[in-house]
Amino acid sequence: MSSTLSRVRAAYARIETVDRPEIWIGLRPRADVEAEARAIDDRLSRGERLPLAGRLCAVKGNIDVAGLPTTAGCPSYAYQPRVDAPAVARLRAAGALVLGTTNLDQFATGLVGTRSPHGAVRGAHDPARISGGSSSGSAVAVALGIVDLALGTDTAGSGRVPAAFNGIVGLKPTRGLVPTAGVVPACASLDCVTVFARTLPEAEQALAYLASPAGRDLPPLPRRAPGPWRIAVAATDQLGELDEGWAQAYEAAVDRLVASGASVRTLDLTPFTEAAAMLYEGAFVAERYTAVGSFVDKAISEGDASLDPTVAGIITRARDIPAHRLFADIERLAVLRARADTELADADALLLPTAPGHPTLAEVAADPLGANARLGRFTNSTNLFDQAAVAVPAGEANGLPFGVMLIGPAFTDERLARIAALLEPETRLSVVGAHLSGQPLNPQLLSLGARLDRTTTTAPVYRLHALRTDPPKPGLVHVGEGGSPIETEVWRLPAEGLGRLLSVLPRPMTLGSVELADGSRVPGFLCEPGALEGAPDITEYGGWRTYLNR
Amino acid sequence: MSSTLSRVRAAYARIETVDRPEIWIGLRPRADVEAEARAIDDRLSRGERLPLAGRLCAVKGNIDVAGLPTTAGCPSYAYQPRVDAPAVARLRAAGALVLGTTNLDQFATGLVGTRSPHGAVRGAHDPARISGGSSSGSAVAVALGIVDLALGTDTAGSGRVPAAFNGIVGLKPTRGLVPTAGVVPACASLDCVTVFARTLPEAEQALAYLASPAGRDLPPLPRRAPGPWRIAVAATDQLGELDEGWAQAYEAAVDRLVASGASVRTLDLTPFTEAAAMLYEGAFVAERYTAVGSFVDKAISEGDASLDPTVAGIITRARDIPAHRLFADIERLAVLRARADTELADADALLLPTAPGHPTLAEVAADPLGANARLGRFTNSTNLFDQAAVAVPAGEANGLPFGVMLIGPAFTDERLARIAALLEPETRLSVVGAHLSGQPLNPQLLSLGARLDRTTTTAPVYRLHALRTDPPKPGLVHVGEGGSPIETEVWRLPAEGLGRLLSVLPRPMTLGSVELADGSRVPGFLCEPGALEGAPDITEYGGWRTYLNR
Repeated sequence: MSSTLSRVRAAYARIETVDRPEIWIGLRPRADVEAEARAIDDRLSRGERLPLAGRLCAVKGNIDVAGLPTTAGCPSYAYQPRVDAPAVARLRAAGALVLGTTNLDQFATGLVGTRSPHGAVRGAHDPARISGGSSSGSAVAVALGIVDLALGTDTAGSGRVPAAFNGIVGLKPTRGLVPTAGVVPACASLDCVTVFARTLPEAEQALAYLASPAGRDLPPLPRRAPGPWRIAVAATDQLGELDEGWAQAYEAAVDRLVASGASVRTLDLTPFTEAAAMLYEGAFVAERYTAVGSFVDKAISEGDASLDPTVAGIITRARDIPAHRLFADIERLAVLRARADTELADADALLLPTAPGHPTLAEVAADPLGANARLGRFTNSTNLFDQAAVAVPAGEANGLPFGVMLIGPAFTDERLARIAALLEPETRLSVVGAHLSGQPLNPQLLSLGARLDRTTTTAPVYRLHALRTDPPKPGLVHVGEGGSPIETEVWRLPAEGLGRLLSVLPRPMTLGSVELADGSRVPGFLCEPGALEGAPDITEYGGWRTYLNR
Repeated sequence: MSSTLSRVRAAYARIETVDRPEIWIGLRPRADVEAEARAIDDRLSRGERLPLAGRLCAVKGNIDVAGLPTTAGCPSYAYQPRVDAPAVARLRAAGALVLGTTNLDQFATGLVGTRSPHGAVRGAHDPARISGGSSSGSAVAVALGIVDLALGTDTAGSGRVPAAFNGIVGLKPTRGLVPTAGVVPACASLDCVTVFARTLPEAEQALAYLASPAGRDLPPLPRRAPGPWRIAVAATDQLGELDEGWAQAYEAAVDRLVASGASVRTLDLTPFTEAAAMLYEGAFVAERYTAVGSFVDKAISEGDASLDPTVAGIITRARDIPAHRLFADIERLAVLRARADTELADADALLLPTAPGHPTLAEVAADPLGANARLGRFTNSTNLFDQAAVAVPAGEANGLPFGVMLIGPAFTDERLARIAALLEPETRLSVVGAHLSGQPLNPQLLSLGARLDRTTTTAPVYRLHALRTDPPKPGLVHVGEGGSPIETEVWRLPAEGLGRLLSVLPRPMTLGSVELADGSRVPGFLCEPGALEGAPDITEYGGWRTYLNR
C-alpha cells in the first residue's frame, strides 16, 4: 500500500479507537480522503516535489475548507465556502491532506473548549479536564495522534492554551504573517491563524508554507545584540495563583534555559497582566459584536438553539459599549504597551507559563466566565501588543502536560522557535563501561554535548560480562532473577547527540532501555547476544571500574 | 579524576599520538593547563556557571594569548602580549582552556598552510595534502580531536578553506562582530576572527560568547520575506575548473537543501569571482604592507631567515602600488558589490563550494602563487562585500572531506548557521518489523521526520525470531555462519529523530549496527538476548511481512 494511503487508513482507524466524536464538526468521508491520498502518491511517484506530502491536517471550524460548511461552532451560522481559506489552500498545495473541520468554542469566543453545541472537547490526557480552547478539536486531534498538523486561530490565546493543556506545540505567528481571509472573525484586528503539531520542526515546517508577506508590509527586524539568548521571566509572586506544582514546573523551564546558556532576568509583569484584563473586560470585546453581533441578535430573537448561551451573552453585552470607551482603552493600551516594551528592553523573549492552571470540565461548568478569564492571564496581551508567541510543552505537573510560552516582538517568530527548542527535554544515556568518566570513550560523550547527571546503579536484574572488544568494553545483559545492581553513570545529552552516538556505534554494542535502581528507565548500553559467548561474567565486581582496578 | 582535568590529559596524550608537531607554535606546558583545569573544576564544584567549562581551545598564532609570544608565524616578529586578545579573553572567561598557539601561513598571508618557518601543516585526513590556511594549525588541531574549538582569522578565506579541507565547521562572522584587537593585521579593514569546531552547535555556542556589538554599530537586519529558505547557487559552468568529483559533491549539497524544503535558483557568479581576483591582484594587497611592510623590509635587509620567501615577496611587491590605483579599485569594487547584491536579491544565502579543489603539498610547492590564488576563488570576495559566511562539511569527494559555504548579508550569521544545519548528514535506520511501511509503528517513524530510503535485505548473517511482544515484533539476531538475508527497509531521518526514537524504545528492543546486503552498516533494530528465549525462529520466511502473511 502506498505511503500516504496507509497513513490515511491509520488515521481513520485511530479516530475509531480514541472515540472522541466531539473533536470533529465536519469529518470528511474516508473514501474521499483516500482518493486524495492516492492522487498525492501518484504525483510523488511521478517525481513531483510536495514538501508536506501526506501530512494529515485538521482545520478549526471557523476556517473555510471548500466542500465543508464553515460553522464557527454554530450550526445555524453555517455557510458553504466556495474556496479554501488561503491558509488551507497553502497546506494543500504543499501536499497536505485535510481530514475535516474541528470543534471550537463558538465564534472562537473562549479559552475553555466547552462552549459548543457539538459538545465539550475533553482533554487528550485526562478526559475529566477541559481541552482548552477555542481551538479545542484541532489541538486534541494532534495530541491524540490522529493528524500531524492542525490549524487553529488565536485572539486571546486560542492557539496556545489548548497546546499547553494537551502537551503539543502551538505557533502563534505575528499578526498578518498568515492571511486571515476565509476565517470567521473573532476580533478581526487581532486574529491570527495558528498551527499545532507534536514537534517544533513539524510546526515550523508548516508555518514556512502558511506564511506570506501579502498581509502586511514588512518592517526591518530590529537586530539583537550578539551574545547568548536574553530571556525575561516573571517573578513567581507576579504570576498570581497557579495550580499546584505549576510554579515549580515554570522554574524548571527557567532552569533549563539557564543550563542551555541563556541569560535570564526578571521583569515587571504588570503591564502584561493589566493589558490582558482589558481584552474581555474593556471595550475591545466590542469587535466581536462587529463580527457576528447582528447574527447573534437575530438568532436570539428566533430562539435559535444553536447558540452557546455563554458566548451569546458575551457578544450581546458588547453591543452597548460606547465608542468613547474604546478611544480611552486604545490610549491606555498604548501606555501599557510602551511600559511592556521598556520592561522587555533587549530581551529576546519573555518566558511565561502558557496558562495559570488546567481546570476540570466541572470547574468550568460551575463558573464559565471566571474560569475562562483566569486562563487568559498570560496569553490575552500578546495580540494586543502585536507580539509573536510559541507555546511548547515543558514537562509535566501533577502527571499532566505543563506548557510554557515564549513571547517576543513582531516578526521574531523564527527566533522564538529557536529558543523554544532549548526547552525540549534532553535525552539521557546510561553508561557502564568505556564511556564512564575518565574512561577512553568518555570524550565522545562530551563532544556530543553530554553532561553527567548522576552516578547510580542499575536495578538488580542485570549481569555484566567482559567482552573481547578493542578497547575492552563490558556487556550488560538483562537477566531478571539472579541479577545484581551494576554501577552506572546517567548522562544528559541532546536527542541529536544520542542519535549521532547511535549512528557510529560499532557492533557488538547496542542501545536499549535500561532499568535503574530507582525503577526509572533510560536508554543505555547493552550488547548483542553473540558477544556474550565466552565473555567472562564479572558481575561480582559490581561495575566496570572496580573490575579494571581488581 | 575531575572532568576537565581528565580532558586535558586526554588532549596531551592525543598530541603525542597524532605526532603532528607542526600544528603548534606555542604549546603550553601540560602542568600549567592541568592547574587551570583543576581551578575550573573547583569553580564548577562551587556552583559557578561557566558555559564553556572545560572546552579545550587552540588559538591561531597571530592572536594574543597572555604568556605566549605572538609570532604571526615569524619568530623574529614575536612580541610578548601583556593581555589576551578580547576574543581569547572571552573564551577563557566562559571557562574554556587554551592549550597554545598554532601554526599559520606567515602574517596570515596564504590559503595553503605551507608558508611557515614552523613547517607546512599537513592535512588531517591525508598528510600528503595541504591543510589549507592560513589558519592551518587551528583547523587541524580541531579535526584531529585534540581541541574542541580553535580561533582562526579570515581575510581571504583563512577561516573557511582549512575547515573544508579538514572536514570541520568554520564560522566566518560578519566583520566587526568579534573584536580584532590583539590580532596581527593582515588587511586590517577586512580581517575577521573566526571559530572552528567539529560541529555547528559547538561553533555557534562559542561564537555567542565571542561576539559583541562593541566593534560596530548595529544596523537593522533586513527582514526576509517568509517562506522556505531561498538559496542561490552557481551554475556548474561558472565554478571554473574543479577537482574530480567536486562538481558532483556540490550538486549533492544543492539536492540536500532542496530535499529539506529550500527553494533554489541559480545566479550569475561573475561579480563574486571578479571581486575575488581583486584581493591579491589589485591594490587591496597594499593593506598588508601597511600592517607589516616596514618590518619585512628591515628583516630582508638583515637577511632574516624567519621570513617565508613567498609571503615576503607578496608583501614587498605591495609597497609600490600607487594610491590612485586603490581609488580606482574601491570604485570598481562598489560596482561589483552592487551587481552581487542584485544577483542575490531576496536569497537568504549563496551556496558555493568552499574551494575549487584540494592540492597536495607537492602541487603547492611547484606553483606557490598559482595554487594559492586558485584556492580563494570562492572565498576572496566575502569580506570585500562585507558578507558573513559559514563553512561546513558536505560529504566526501575522492575519499576526502568536501566542504561548502553559505554566504549571506552582514549580520545574518545565525540564519546562515541555521541553513547550514540542513546540510548535516541525515542518519539512517534499518527496520525489519513493526516499523516497516504499513505496519502499526510506522507512523512513529514518520512523525520523527523519517523518509523511506530503500528496501533491501540484511547481509546473510542474521536470524529472525517472532518475539512475544505487544504489538507482535520480530527480533533480529546476528549469528554469522548459518544466517540468512532478512527483508529490511532503510529509512533516513534527522539525528534528533533517531535519538528521540531511542529514548522511548521499550524493552526488549534494542538498536545497534546492522550489516546490509551491500556490506554497509546502519543503525537498526535488534533485541535483548533474553527476548529470544522461546521465541520461534522465523528466518525461513525471509522477513516479517512474509511471516505475517503466511
